[in-house]
Amino acid sequence: MSQDFKQAALDYHEFPRPGKISIELSTSAETAKDLALAYSPGVAEPVRAIAADPEAAYRYTAKGNLVAVISNGTAILGLGDLGPLASKPVMEGKALLFKRFANIDSIDIEVDAESPQAFIDTVARIAETFGGINLEDIKAPECFEIERTLIERCNIPVFHDDQHGTAIVTAAGMINALELAGKKLEEASIVCLGAGAAASACMKLLINMGARVENIYMIDRKGVIHSGRDDLTAEKAAFATETDKRTLDDAIDGADVFLGLSGPDLLSPEQLKKMAANPVVFACANPDPEIRPEVANAVRNDVIMATGRSDFPNQVNNVLGFPFIFRGALDVRASAINEEMKAAAVKALAELAREPVTQEVLIAYGLESLEFGREYILPKATDSRLLGRISYAVAQAAIDSGVARLPMPEHYPIRSSAELAN
Amino acid sequence: MSQDFKQAALDYHEFPRPGKISIELSTSAETAKDLALAYSPGVAEPVRAIAADPEAAYRYTAKGNLVAVISNGTAILGLGDLGPLASKPVMEGKALLFKRFANIDSIDIEVDAESPQAFIDTVARIAETFGGINLEDIKAPECFEIERTLIERCNIPVFHDDQHGTAIVTAAGMINALELAGKKLEEASIVCLGAGAAASACMKLLINMGARVENIYMIDRKGVIHSGRDDLTAEKAAFATETDKRTLDDAIDGADVFLGLSGPDLLSPEQLKKMAANPVVFACANPDPEIRPEVANAVRNDVIMATGRSDFPNQVNNVLGFPFIFRGALDVRASAINEEMKAAAVKALAELAREPVTQEVLIAYGLESLEFGREYILPKATDSRLLGRISYAVAQAAIDSGVARLPMPEHYPIRSSAELAN
Repeated sequence: MSQDFKQAALDYHEFPRPGKISIELSTSAETAKDLALAYSPGVAEPVRAIAADPEAAYRYTAKGNLVAVISNGTAILGLGDLGPLASKPVMEGKALLFKRFANIDSIDIEVDAESPQAFIDTVARIAETFGGINLEDIKAPECFEIERTLIERCNIPVFHDDQHGTAIVTAAGMINALELAGKKLEEASIVCLGAGAAASACMKLLINMGARVENIYMIDRKGVIHSGRDDLTAEKAAFATETDKRTLDDAIDGADVFLGLSGPDLLSPEQLKKMAANPVVFACANPDPEIRPEVANAVRNDVIMATGRSDFPNQVNNVLGFPFIFRGALDVRASAINEEMKAAAVKALAELAREPVTQEVLIAYGLESLEFGREYILPKATDSRLLGRISYAVAQAAIDSGVARLPMPEHYPIRSSAELAN
Repeated sequence: MSQDFKQAALDYHEFPRPGKISIELSTSAETAKDLALAYSPGVAEPVRAIAADPEAAYRYTAKGNLVAVISNGTAILGLGDLGPLASKPVMEGKALLFKRFANIDSIDIEVDAESPQAFIDTVARIAETFGGINLEDIKAPECFEIERTLIERCNIPVFHDDQHGTAIVTAAGMINALELAGKKLEEASIVCLGAGAAASACMKLLINMGARVENIYMIDRKGVIHSGRDDLTAEKAAFATETDKRTLDDAIDGADVFLGLSGPDLLSPEQLKKMAANPVVFACANPDPEIRPEVANAVRNDVIMATGRSDFPNQVNNVLGFPFIFRGALDVRASAINEEMKAAAVKALAELAREPVTQEVLIAYGLESLEFGREYILPKATDSRLLGRISYAVAQAAIDSGVARLPMPEHYPIRSSAELAN
């Protein structure tokens, strides 16, 4: 980042007022009569209604459209463990994206907990306040136990976006990339560089969708994860295969897919050369990818590439997922975001990229045309069709899998975010 | 409440959308450039700034204007222990009042904790998120330990409004009422019917301001609290006096002040008759006072009366206090709301009632005139001068008592809430 950009980012956060979100009245509170309805004595009525039937909270309070973005600040962006308070700008940013893309009221909560159990207890105790919980920037391996336990203890959706949001968007891009490469997920040899929460979730989702665990080489700081290692967490052990490959150099030889969730420049041009024909390379390290697209394209011209950056084609961006996934889950009052809903989001995202883009998208990106192909395997973040398509698919999957407490809303599918706000 | 009013209250909470507050963007988030500043990669800059200096959270996030309204739902209004979820409409209502009267961003948090310690731990762990914490509707005696411990553990203001907000507004009215009665607080004989959190806080504040504990008769369900009783909590024991009075009937004889924080119709006309000349009667039970003003006035014509209701003169209403107290505390970044700040709020409130009312107030209440006197001892809730006067007095007291981390803001005193919003 340039100094100018850094200062612009600080100014953006400071002005016109500190931070990015505010809390506003969603109703009239001007007159004495308004206040008598909003507070004492009128407020006693919704209190009684909720005491009699907890579901009435969705009718008389903001709960049903309210998602908490919760972090302990142990894995902030690529910056590491800087503590809960330092994570606040990121969590507020996530809240901003929820509102901007899916009209979901979202508030950040930073938790200063002395242990994973203390974090779990804290979040579980405040969960009733919200309609859903988005966990964010919590380091592995604690994040696995935290999410698993909170899902058990809460009757609202709990979703660790660093894991599942990343996995859903990655999988959608991967399906389209493999289609363009003329390869099948079931047969693809996959190298995953990085073995943290996102990597683990990506591989689990790809396996659920057909990839074979024996074709996956997950690589952590000590090399390929294989069955001979005795230093593996339970999460990593699930990906341990019988293999004599030990390094990235070994694993990349003939591989169909490289997924990087690691650090800058960790895939060399020589390693890229050794991959199979039409290699799929998702170099998702932020801000600097495992291999830069211009470097990759200079080495070979058959590569199908994605990164985490907005200034290259095919951005793997979580904002393609979480706002719409929660929108769909909230709108049918799903008790969880289950595997069926995640798979539905993957499918809907992949399908949308295969459709002709709208004029709106072309104008926003200053393009004359954009067609499904090597430079366009995922929808653009500003594609207003995302809201309707992804939310609808997720809501339908929630209904079909039995976790929805409401039928499909009459106003579905939502056509655009502008329509939703009206 | 009539059936029509009850239905209107439910409708108010359900439409135009469920609940009373929403979360909105306080900045621009339309373009790709906006989003690059708001989230990745720009957000890394404020994260780094806060990691280097925690105070930067006030500069780059919404923390400094954000107050959590937190309850466990154990003492909801006059309705009792209905649990955290049922308290949500009340807490959202409080958040609405914070915004409406002092432009403070406020979010409700309902806590389902198995013990007071679990509640304390939960609130302490999420406290960094906020600039202040307003505790609400937590039953006695747990509320005392909860507030005391949280004040110790948090470096932001923690304020149990049911105690101190009530006490501040009551004390302001009491000072003016005694002035009109020609009596001194130091000499007044005070009967307090009710011995919960609000009663205890009211008596403590009156004692801090000059009332004598030996002149106070606090009465709980078992009668007058006296030094011979062995069933008293620590909080109640602080008010135990050497006396042979045992009942309200005993205590009210010759009393100068009656403060009711109990239930409907508990002060009889006969008991009122026995009070001293110019009796001060604050019958604050909601919605039905300990004695109705028309009943009191029929018994004797020298009574100076206040209630909790908006449809009688002299409403003791917490909204006269908490929005402005927090506004002043936040604006000088006070680390706590201490006794000096509470006393300053009492004084400013009492003084404002002695000033000529504005046209604005007369119009809002459909009155031709309103002057300091038996029918007007406290400012009206819609008096827009409250914000400037109370906030300024509280901020100045914070500075003078050494708990402020900022000097008096340049824009102080705020003249009106309209000015503040601009």
